[in-house]
Amino acid sequence: MVREKNVMKRELIRRVLASESERENVSVAGWVRTRRDAKGFSFLEVNDGSCLGSLQVVVDEGIPGSEDLKRMLTGSSVSLVGELVASPAKGQTWEMRATTITLVGEAPEDYPLQKKRHSAEFMREIAHLRPRANLYGAIFRVRSQLTQAVHRFFAERDFVNVHTPILTASDCEGAGEMFRVTTHDPMKGGGKPEDDFFEKAAYLTVSGQLEGETFACALSNIYTFGPTFRAENSNTSRHAAEFWMIEPEIAFCDLEGDMELAEDFVRAMVREVVEEMPEDFALFANFVDKGLRERLQQVLEQPFVRVSYTDAVEILEKSGATFQYPVAWGENLQSEHERYLTEKHFKAPVTVFNYPKTIKPFYMRQNDDDRTVAAMDLLVPGIGELIGGSQREERYDRLKAKMDEEGLSEGYDWYLELRKFGSVPHAGFGLGFERLIMFVTGVGNIRDVIPFPRTPGNCDF
Amino acid sequence: MVREKNVMKRELIRRVLASESERENVSVAGWVRTRRDAKGFSFLEVNDGSCLGSLQVVVDEGIPGSEDLKRMLTGSSVSLVGELVASPAKGQTWEMRATTITLVGEAPEDYPLQKKRHSAEFMREIAHLRPRANLYGAIFRVRSQLTQAVHRFFAERDFVNVHTPILTASDCEGAGEMFRVTTHDPMKGGGKPEDDFFEKAAYLTVSGQLEGETFACALSNIYTFGPTFRAENSNTSRHAAEFWMIEPEIAFCDLEGDMELAEDFVRAMVREVVEEMPEDFALFANFVDKGLRERLQQVLEQPFVRVSYTDAVEILEKSGATFQYPVAWGENLQSEHERYLTEKHFKAPVTVFNYPKTIKPFYMRQNDDDRTVAAMDLLVPGIGELIGGSQREERYDRLKAKMDEEGLSEGYDWYLELRKFGSVPHAGFGLGFERLIMFVTGVGNIRDVIPFPRTPGNCDF
Repeated sequence: MVREKNVMKRELIRRVLASESERENVSVAGWVRTRRDAKGFSFLEVNDGSCLGSLQVVVDEGIPGSEDLKRMLTGSSVSLVGELVASPAKGQTWEMRATTITLVGEAPEDYPLQKKRHSAEFMREIAHLRPRANLYGAIFRVRSQLTQAVHRFFAERDFVNVHTPILTASDCEGAGEMFRVTTHDPMKGGGKPEDDFFEKAAYLTVSGQLEGETFACALSNIYTFGPTFRAENSNTSRHAAEFWMIEPEIAFCDLEGDMELAEDFVRAMVREVVEEMPEDFALFANFVDKGLRERLQQVLEQPFVRVSYTDAVEILEKSGATFQYPVAWGENLQSEHERYLTEKHFKAPVTVFNYPKTIKPFYMRQNDDDRTVAAMDLLVPGIGELIGGSQREERYDRLKAKMDEEGLSEGYDWYLELRKFGSVPHAGFGLGFERLIMFVTGVGNIRDVIPFPRTPGNCDF
Repeated sequence: MVREKNVMKRELIRRVLASESERENVSVAGWVRTRRDAKGFSFLEVNDGSCLGSLQVVVDEGIPGSEDLKRMLTGSSVSLVGELVASPAKGQTWEMRATTITLVGEAPEDYPLQKKRHSAEFMREIAHLRPRANLYGAIFRVRSQLTQAVHRFFAERDFVNVHTPILTASDCEGAGEMFRVTTHDPMKGGGKPEDDFFEKAAYLTVSGQLEGETFACALSNIYTFGPTFRAENSNTSRHAAEFWMIEPEIAFCDLEGDMELAEDFVRAMVREVVEEMPEDFALFANFVDKGLRERLQQVLEQPFVRVSYTDAVEILEKSGATFQYPVAWGENLQSEHERYLTEKHFKAPVTVFNYPKTIKPFYMRQNDDDRTVAAMDLLVPGIGELIGGSQREERYDRLKAKMDEEGLSEGYDWYLELRKFGSVPHAGFGLGFERLIMFVTGVGNIRDVIPFPRTPGNCDF
């Protein structure tokens, strides 16, 4: 019973380390990172994942529970009561002098997370344990804090969160890359769509935008934040089959307002990590990516540049730089082009706007020049495109013609009806959440910022 | 160009109605709910979805744009500039005297949302328009505010949000009810799992709990909030194929701590709606469910009761009440039993704990009596079970034996390993978000609290 009480009444180490004065009778619990034995006492580094830092604990021989000290190996769980005292050691304010220690759960000597460098590949194989390592703990704390910051950002601006559907019978960006969802057995064959659960073919969503527009055309300012899926068979460091997207949509808004919101959003997210999470951020800046701090400071301090696609192409053409892909008006900007613009030419985040209509989807608003649409991409150093958005075509006739041209009108009556019943100018953007995390942490592989990443051939845990 | 400026610089009506004094040059935009013409002027009710209330606008004949007044039918979109003045009308503080009005998008006379009562069934058919109606606007504002409140609640308590995977090859609660996810064509047949996208059979998750436990055993306090799926072919007012779940998981926590968190959570969510959203809440309390206010006040004011399953069964057996399903120790409590306990017997929210082990899943912690497990269900009036949770079995041998018994060990090595490497007592619960929304709004059908509900045969929009 004593053990239960000790275990259950613990304080998070994050709170303990933020104490303002010495205190008695402090209870903590966590996992042993290391143990060093000295004459008559031992040092334990105990971490509970609530923050990067571990609590250093001095355990004198003879205190209750100290008879188990030898079994408190790396990875084992312990609970402790003790006195919080100023630490004589460098680099930490507080340490604990234990009065009671309890071994809660042992870890064997072959515990996989011994104190040494492990490859990222190995860590992916033990994705159920890797958040116990410093780097991954920091990554997933950042992921969480940004998740909460996303909701705060939009709540402060009166945006309504909408849970757009994950299961969908429609496809916004090209059916080839969608996962099929079924209660039929794919082995068997003969599984007719009309006999399936939804009585038609159903897929996993690639974007909540179209449904989000319906809510913007009712509640004014909305945003989605949920998982989206691509069945793309590409094994790169930037693609995952399952990832989270943030998609705001604003009624009575044009491309200008859309760009403003996107820029404010990026700045707020960067600020959240740099200013509100200094300990975790320092880990990334010091050990993951030496250029990170400067790059993010640039985002916080530099005004964002805006340049039209046409001007951007001219800059690239005149740059004298050698690119793998050719630069030509009417072609997509490649990552190398985007990075040249933001990293070399402007040395600041850049929003490129008014793209050729031929390379953008049907729903973007046609500009009067008849060549471009009111699209925008926000580019940041180190990543390239972070955000893509547009003003939406709100004119029924134009949208209908475009959808007919692309063979999309069937099944999209509801989308067209938004333009029939009190249509309004509106705009929005989409942002891959993982790309944002990679940008603010400097972590280079998407598999390392997703708790249990799904890629071709990988659906473990 | 004037039009563009008017449209884009609008203030939300929610903010305008909260003004502290009369103001000039106020810009708003929204959709016309009604228009009444008088001699020399018209009244418009304009709503932008930012709040339940509409802004009453007086439009004098002759102001710029007033020539379009006759075309400003219900459902059309307008933008306005004007003076905010004290309203002589009852029930509203402010009205606007327009100085300019712009018809942005017309709505034809057959706009489906005319001012009259529509059936819930009809509204589901126009799910892309129904958030423009008062009731659905209020429901989806509540859904949003609760979403944001969930994140605030856990952030304040140092819980880390975890995006557990939606795609999974494992199954926590019974494979029969899972959707299959595939890139094979179910019509064709011969689609071998090893040739599929993930090189094995993949499904949509029914719960993030098991993966959540891995993160709790690293970061201490975590929660998930995401979509989950059931391929159950049941057409009831409480089942949907896609719904959102909240699943906290706490390391170094027993059933007691779990119950405390669950009770705090329910109280916080109820408070959020009753106290922070008085206007929307009044709509539900006055027009949807006359008993709602009293029921929720009970939650805020009454202490939550805790009773063991064994005692609960005894209460039911002795109650003298007639139930459709028999009451017997070892059987599940049915909704009628749960509602009897919370509505009739205790007249308060009730947490029932320590259920027979035979009716609960493998991962729940076995109690010393060898008959029960450390499970709990939180019951509320009007709904029955709102939350289900448990302390998890942290003892390797017990868990392994149980999993072997149920034929589950294969593929769950990672889950068992949490009990090998520094195992800790931990506990958590799950809560269907839609059920919470139904509880706080009194809305009786789950289809009406999900933006685009998915049920057997229904996957529209």
